[in-house]
Amino acid sequence: MKKPKILITNDDSIHAPGIRKLISIMRQIGDVIVMAPDSPQSGMGHAITVATPLRIKQIAKEIGYEEYSCNGTPVDCVKIAEKAVLHGKPDLIVSGINHGSNASVNVIYSGTIAAAIEGCIEGVNSIGFSLDDYSWDADFSHVDEYIKKITLEVLDKGLPKDTCLNVNIPALNKSPIKGIMVCRQAKACWDEAFEARKDPHDRDYYWLTGVFHSDDLAEDTDQWALKNNFIAIVPLHFDLTAHHNLKTLSEYDWKI
Amino acid sequence: MKKPKILITNDDSIHAPGIRKLISIMRQIGDVIVMAPDSPQSGMGHAITVATPLRIKQIAKEIGYEEYSCNGTPVDCVKIAEKAVLHGKPDLIVSGINHGSNASVNVIYSGTIAAAIEGCIEGVNSIGFSLDDYSWDADFSHVDEYIKKITLEVLDKGLPKDTCLNVNIPALNKSPIKGIMVCRQAKACWDEAFEARKDPHDRDYYWLTGVFHSDDLAEDTDQWALKNNFIAIVPLHFDLTAHHNLKTLSEYDWKI
Repeated sequence: MKKPKILITNDDSIHAPGIRKLISIMRQIGDVIVMAPDSPQSGMGHAITVATPLRIKQIAKEIGYEEYSCNGTPVDCVKIAEKAVLHGKPDLIVSGINHGSNASVNVIYSGTIAAAIEGCIEGVNSIGFSLDDYSWDADFSHVDEYIKKITLEVLDKGLPKDTCLNVNIPALNKSPIKGIMVCRQAKACWDEAFEARKDPHDRDYYWLTGVFHSDDLAEDTDQWALKNNFIAIVPLHFDLTAHHNLKTLSEYDWKI
Repeated sequence: MKKPKILITNDDSIHAPGIRKLISIMRQIGDVIVMAPDSPQSGMGHAITVATPLRIKQIAKEIGYEEYSCNGTPVDCVKIAEKAVLHGKPDLIVSGINHGSNASVNVIYSGTIAAAIEGCIEGVNSIGFSLDDYSWDADFSHVDEYIKKITLEVLDKGLPKDTCLNVNIPALNKSPIKGIMVCRQAKACWDEAFEARKDPHDRDYYWLTGVFHSDDLAEDTDQWALKNNFIAIVPLHFDLTAHHNLKTLSEYDWKI
C-alpha cells in the first residue's frame, strides 16, 4: 500500500518539542513533509502574509522525509508547502502538538488550529493536536498511542466534508487518560488586562495578560473532557454563518 | 437620550479612507472612540499580539470624540481600547469600512471582521462593514444611508446573543443598490500561487497571489447578493463546532 503523504506544521515554531514529537509519530505512519514557522506564531489565528515576501529554508531531505522552515504564519506554511514544495495536496495535514490547550474559544486565536482549518478549506483531511500544558518542557510521553489511533482512523475513514478535527489532550498527570470524547467547543472568553509599563525613555507600553473564563459547565464540551481527563475531539467547520439567526435577522427593518 | 458609545477600528489602518468615512457616519450617531492599527493589517485574521508590547498614540481628543492608533492587530485594538482607554465596554463596535469584500471565505482571513467577532465574543453588539472595491481611492459616496440605517437598527433592536454582522456593500456602479439581504456565507476558496523571485543576493523569495474561486451559485449567499447589487448581511457566530457532524464522528472507532 502506498504510504500517505503527511504535511506537518504548528505555531510554536519548528524548534518546539511539540512538533518534534508529532514528527516522530507521523514518520511511523507515512511520508512526512514539515513546513513550520521559523519563530513562534502563537495567537496568529488565521493570519496570512500579504505585504511581505515569504522565504523558506530546507533543513532536511531524505527518502520519505523533508523539513523546511518558513518566515510566515502557520496558514502561510500550509499554502507554501503545497504550492512551492509539494506542488499538490498532501493526504493529511497535522498541526501541533501545540504547547497549551486550544479548547473552547482558544480555537479562534490559535495559529495551530488555523493551519488545520486552512487544510479543511482546501479539502484536505486535517487535524490540530494540542496538549493542555503551556510549558516549553511539557511532558509529551503519554500522547503517542492516542495520536497514532486518531490519525489512522482519519486516514482510514476520512472526515466529513468541510470538517477538520481539533484534538486536545490532557496534560500528563497521575491518573490515566479515560478515553476519547467527541464534543463541542465550550463557550468561554478571556478576561483580559493590559499591564501598563514605562520604557527607559519614559514612554508607555502595554503587555496583554488575561484570565480564561467560562460559565459553560455542561458535560458535552471540550473543557469538561479535559478537566475529566478525556481527550477532546471537536469537529470544526469554517462556515461562520449563524444559520439559527438568519430568520430573526431577516425580520429586522432593513428598508431604506 | 444618552448617546451610544461607539468604538471604531479596521484593518486597513487609521490612515485608510474607509475608516474616515465610517468615523464621519458614526459621529452623527454617537460618541466615538477610534482605536485603529497604525499600519495595514489586512489578512491578519483573529491574530493577537502576545510576544511584543503594544503602544497607543492619542491623535485627537474633544467632546464626544477620541482617536488613537495602536501598533497591534485589529483584535488587539478592540481589547486595548476597552481595557486601557474606555475602562469598560462600548455600546457598539463597528469595524471598517474595509477596502475590499469580506464576503464568503474572506471572513476567515479578515482582520476587519475579526475585530467584530472579538466584540461579539465579549458580548458587545458588533458590525463589520466592507466595500466590494479593493482600491485605496474607492468611492464610498453611496454608503452613508445604508450604514446609518443598519447601525441604527442594531442599536435599536440589539443583536441575537453571540452574533455579530458581516456587512458587504457593492462597489459604486451605474445601477442603484437594490436593497439589503440577510444571507449566508458562500462556500468558496482561494486558489493560490506563489510567485518565486530572486533577491539581489540571489536568494529565493515568494509572493503570495491568488484567485478567488466559488462553485456555490445558490441565491441565498453573500456572493450572490453582491453580484446582484444587494447589500449582504451575514450573521456570524464564533462557535466553530461542526454540530451536524458530532454524531457521525462519535461513531468512529476511538477505542485504544
